[in-house]
Amino acid sequence: MTKAIRVCLVGAGRAGQVHAESLTRHIPEGKLTALVDPNTTALESVGTKFSVEARFTALSEAIDRVPVEAVVITTPTCTHRELAVLAASRGKHVFCEKPMALTIEECDEMIAAAERYAVILQLGFMRRFDPDFQAAAARIEAGEIGQPMLIKSLTHGPGLPPPWARDLRTSNGMLAEVNSHDWDAVRWLAHSDPERVYAQVSNFKGAKHGVDTPHFYDTALVNVRFVSGGMAYISGVCPCDYGYDARVEIVGEKGLLQIGDVRGQSVVVCTSREHGLVTPIYRSWPERFASAYVREMKHFLECVRTESQPSVNGHDGRWAVAGVLAATTSFLDERSVRVAEVLEKAAEPSGVNR
Amino acid sequence: MTKAIRVCLVGAGRAGQVHAESLTRHIPEGKLTALVDPNTTALESVGTKFSVEARFTALSEAIDRVPVEAVVITTPTCTHRELAVLAASRGKHVFCEKPMALTIEECDEMIAAAERYAVILQLGFMRRFDPDFQAAAARIEAGEIGQPMLIKSLTHGPGLPPPWARDLRTSNGMLAEVNSHDWDAVRWLAHSDPERVYAQVSNFKGAKHGVDTPHFYDTALVNVRFVSGGMAYISGVCPCDYGYDARVEIVGEKGLLQIGDVRGQSVVVCTSREHGLVTPIYRSWPERFASAYVREMKHFLECVRTESQPSVNGHDGRWAVAGVLAATTSFLDERSVRVAEVLEKAAEPSGVNR
Amino acid sequence: MTKAIRVCLVGAGRAGQVHAESLTRHIPEGKLTALVDPNTTALESVGTKFSVEARFTALSEAIDRVPVEAVVITTPTCTHRELAVLAASRGKHVFCEKPMALTIEECDEMIAAAERYAVILQLGFMRRFDPDFQAAAARIEAGEIGQPMLIKSLTHGPGLPPPWARDLRTSNGMLAEVNSHDWDAVRWLAHSDPERVYAQVSNFKGAKHGVDTPHFYDTALVNVRFVSGGMAYISGVCPCDYGYDARVEIVGEKGLLQIGDVRGQSVVVCTSREHGLVTPIYRSWPERFASAYVREMKHFLECVRTESQPSVNGHDGRWAVAGVLAATTSFLDERSVRVAEVLEKAAEPSGVNR
Amino acid sequence: MTKAIRVCLVGAGRAGQVHAESLTRHIPEGKLTALVDPNTTALESVGTKFSVEARFTALSEAIDRVPVEAVVITTPTCTHRELAVLAASRGKHVFCEKPMALTIEECDEMIAAAERYAVILQLGFMRRFDPDFQAAAARIEAGEIGQPMLIKSLTHGPGLPPPWARDLRTSNGMLAEVNSHDWDAVRWLAHSDPERVYAQVSNFKGAKHGVDTPHFYDTALVNVRFVSGGMAYISGVCPCDYGYDARVEIVGEKGLLQIGDVRGQSVVVCTSREHGLVTPIYRSWPERFASAYVREMKHFLECVRTESQPSVNGHDGRWAVAGVLAATTSFLDERSVRVAEVLEKAAEPSGVNR
Repeated sequence: MTKAIRVCLVGAGRAGQVHAESLTRHIPEGKLTALVDPNTTALESVGTKFSVEARFTALSEAIDRVPVEAVVITTPTCTHRELAVLAASRGKHVFCEKPMALTIEECDEMIAAAERYAVILQLGFMRRFDPDFQAAAARIEAGEIGQPMLIKSLTHGPGLPPPWARDLRTSNGMLAEVNSHDWDAVRWLAHSDPERVYAQVSNFKGAKHGVDTPHFYDTALVNVRFVSGGMAYISGVCPCDYGYDARVEIVGEKGLLQIGDVRGQSVVVCTSREHGLVTPIYRSWPERFASAYVREMKHFLECVRTESQPSVNGHDGRWAVAGVLAATTSFLDERSVRVAEVLEKAAEPSGVNR
Repeated sequence: MTKAIRVCLVGAGRAGQVHAESLTRHIPEGKLTALVDPNTTALESVGTKFSVEARFTALSEAIDRVPVEAVVITTPTCTHRELAVLAASRGKHVFCEKPMALTIEECDEMIAAAERYAVILQLGFMRRFDPDFQAAAARIEAGEIGQPMLIKSLTHGPGLPPPWARDLRTSNGMLAEVNSHDWDAVRWLAHSDPERVYAQVSNFKGAKHGVDTPHFYDTALVNVRFVSGGMAYISGVCPCDYGYDARVEIVGEKGLLQIGDVRGQSVVVCTSREHGLVTPIYRSWPERFASAYVREMKHFLECVRTESQPSVNGHDGRWAVAGVLAATTSFLDERSVRVAEVLEKAAEPSGVNR
Repeated sequence: MTKAIRVCLVGAGRAGQVHAESLTRHIPEGKLTALVDPNTTALESVGTKFSVEARFTALSEAIDRVPVEAVVITTPTCTHRELAVLAASRGKHVFCEKPMALTIEECDEMIAAAERYAVILQLGFMRRFDPDFQAAAARIEAGEIGQPMLIKSLTHGPGLPPPWARDLRTSNGMLAEVNSHDWDAVRWLAHSDPERVYAQVSNFKGAKHGVDTPHFYDTALVNVRFVSGGMAYISGVCPCDYGYDARVEIVGEKGLLQIGDVRGQSVVVCTSREHGLVTPIYRSWPERFASAYVREMKHFLECVRTESQPSVNGHDGRWAVAGVLAATTSFLDERSVRVAEVLEKAAEPSGVNR
Repeated sequence: MTKAIRVCLVGAGRAGQVHAESLTRHIPEGKLTALVDPNTTALESVGTKFSVEARFTALSEAIDRVPVEAVVITTPTCTHRELAVLAASRGKHVFCEKPMALTIEECDEMIAAAERYAVILQLGFMRRFDPDFQAAAARIEAGEIGQPMLIKSLTHGPGLPPPWARDLRTSNGMLAEVNSHDWDAVRWLAHSDPERVYAQVSNFKGAKHGVDTPHFYDTALVNVRFVSGGMAYISGVCPCDYGYDARVEIVGEKGLLQIGDVRGQSVVVCTSREHGLVTPIYRSWPERFASAYVREMKHFLECVRTESQPSVNGHDGRWAVAGVLAATTSFLDERSVRVAEVLEKAAEPSGVNR
């Protein structure tokens, strides 16, 4: 067996722990060598949980002190640019969680840094590594359902996001934090870039949860039109009390293709004819995409080992950010928005002050 | 529209009401003209419910007084022979509910009477008219899955049967009253007659329900071997608290075919990720086979109108009775039983005194 | 049994034959007494098929010559107003197929006529009578999933529509002819009226089918915003080569509810592990909604018999027309459109000359 | 991270490679240190594939030369006893693939050796580690469906077994080689030991495949009665051309529970309404139970590390062998067989000469 790639993980939150678990329990070819988090409580607790001795509050210090080949970034979105550029400039390969960044300019800086320092920049769109999504994409690629005409992608997730993740000024809100995966998936499956976007949002549950963040929304419905003439909708609901739900349905010129299932287990129980048949649902994203998280990290380590480009990169992350920005402008201005508007001006949605 | 066929219904119980509803609400080509039941309370209530003026306590009287072309028999099994032979001898076409009769001799008498008086004798195996069962049978017939090797048929039904229907002396018990449909279905789908039978039964719920009927059982598992070398199992559970469940799975030399679904509606609900996704189940046999009951009666009336033979007849009913008798001997004697044993001797299971 | 309601059917096309079949084969309480179609070939063939002796080329003549209580209208949309007003003015109850009419003014005339002459005006939204849709609506009404936040309704149907049905000038196109049911369903299930609409359409298959109708589209995606703050999307594909597909998915504040299934039979077959498990799909709308068509007609006849109002009427039909007109304006003008714009001005979409 | 457990794998066949893959690609806590196979071609090819340098043709030599803590046995059944006893006697923990052995005596020797030398003996019943099976077992344990009354377990697998695995003299045939998992599962889920067995077998495909092995069968149906009064059937089909199929359905006093699905992906495609909706099926057992194979090996290594007993052991393996022997006697003698008959006499089925 070849030598394990040494990894420094930045961010001891939920996503960080998913990757820590992959690296320590499921992936012999990687080794979690250092952990970074400014929150020392989380740092100690997660460091202990995964037996990582080298713990730091800043990435620069970790890189100075511990030899690693790669950095995995799972911190809040607003920190991605700085961390990724730093890692790249020190010659470390970068795996960056979604959303890539807050603005197109930040994305451009990250892409430029990875190119300049000749390191890998892989984005955390794990659906690209889910066996169901991969099988479906291969069949679309093979022409089985013809050209995609309609793509319907949804992500509904439980749990109120933390304040920074629901505030447009610090995160671009739910369309970015929850639906980034849909933005990437519809473009991937459409084989075409988005051209025009129309979005509507609603706030049904904010008051109940005591949320007073401006522009807060918990429900979103987005229309996307692609250059190909194909169309997509993306729907987002968060907090979604019924479970974690991520599915895609594609109508192509020749047929229908569905990816994913609400059902989270192949176990069915019925104990009352009044009540009916019950199947467990996926309860969380780490459960739904368990194997995809392992597989994306294996892909990253394999790219590092073989010095090859990952199948999903900064350009993909940038398109997702562009979609989010166009959609945010759309619902704020109550009009449809061309994505070029966002890309050309690298504009921010009007009415949001950061 | 041609003139409606006039029908006399014997039996105002649950199955009788299903056919009454078909004839009065769903089938313009038939007319429920007379109702017979020795229980005058049921007679009046069901007569009123379906607006049938002519009500009698005996079939002979009904036939004397009201002109009808056909008689539908839905009374307890032990009365079938007498009623069917009477109807036939008066030139009336006969639709007889399952099980056909208690013994092979009774079946033989009924078949002989229908032949002698040149009337139709259709058996109430409504699964033969269920759209799913019919589509499946046609595909097997067409060779799509090759020769059937294994057939798995189950009927699990809610509700404790009435005393006469769970007592071997008056009804041949659950294997007859509940599983007659399976006996017919496996033979129909196997395209072969049963050769050998092995059965086991258990009594899990009798005590809880205060049942002290000798030989009572609520759970049965039967192995059937066909002349073709194919095999089947039949399972029966009654009372089955979780709902009404009737499905068949066939493994042929070339493939698998499944018929039926536990799910009783195309409605799915999830309101809690702790609980999961819920689909209503079929709650009763009239619900599961609603269209099959209408279609079997339409077939019967069409056969009467065109003077043609029904697709399911007394010979089919007789084979189901033979299977039940062999299985009953099997679990009483704890041995496998050749069906020929039952047919040759027209024997009754040992140990049951009627 | 009470006397059957006598019905005159106008229109011997596909929808007309569905209702003719219901009235002659499945509904004893109705009687198809007269048939009207200006196309004498269709008139003779359908009249013979359903044994209707009284055949006419004009509704006025039929009403003059044959006593009927009710008229069922299944002709092209542009004729609905004239026929419905005529029938009403002669005191006949009216069942009118969807879409109700081409404009809001026409709808208003039809509603006024029904009121003036005190006849019933039922619209042909049969989904309201489908057992699955009804069960789901009752559960939403009971609050099981809380207030609807997102409603996703799709109708994808096989077969290129005839020229009149795909031309905006004669029919309002696919969004009316195919998706009228979705417009009604989302409003019914949202318990709220539509406020704002955004639509996009594409033409993927027109060239292949030699269609040169202006503004032709075969794929549509519509966003609807309700007064309640709830949102819906409606998707339409026609011709859709893979089958007939009609499903709804609702996310409420408390949970998820799905209605319908792509699968059209409870039969599953697998004959090759390379190929996989196969379930038949619904092939056409008469197959998918077979029982709903019978049930809506039974409801109509029951309303006629008891002189009560139907559960779906001209006001429902008018809202569906309003949605279609707003959506058509939206995709033609590339902007979101308030439904009030359509209702207030009773405006027609700009750019369409009738 | 603690030091990885060193493992010697005996058997470079298909099951051996599954475990080799687990140990080298998915389980950091284990290390595949030595490989043994008398077939030097397989030895070299598999050794190279998984980068195992230490390769031997005999287990004794491997143990002499390479330090390991554990031995994983995946060779033909007839070799299990000798290898397991050897490994145990050298103080190595043993993971043994199913079936455990050919006879009860062999099982007893293996169990005794593990006890004498105080090593672990885990049996390769990976279904016990499948997430769906585990969740279901926990729910039964918790009483959710009440006491199991009927358990229906099936394993249908593609591919003609090799000559040794279909010959009763060298392997106990399909009921052992394919259905061992069912024997273990039904006993595990019934919470009771088998008391009486009745089996029937058929040979449908032997001639087509040129098989002339005496007593060859490709289809089996077994009834099992438990001490609890519960009943099970086990069905086996091999070669089964339609795919790999492993499912269990349990009817308890309070309800129904289903485990597993024929569908092998959450991808559904429809490209023709003539043909219908298609879902991929599981194609092989390594695919169906991919995560279970990893999890059972992780459990074994964890038991080795913590010196605790595995959740499935030699006694479970012995019961499965007993069931197979009773069933074989049953179909050879055409009678039901008490399992005690096999256990008491440690008898072999009559008519089979080894």
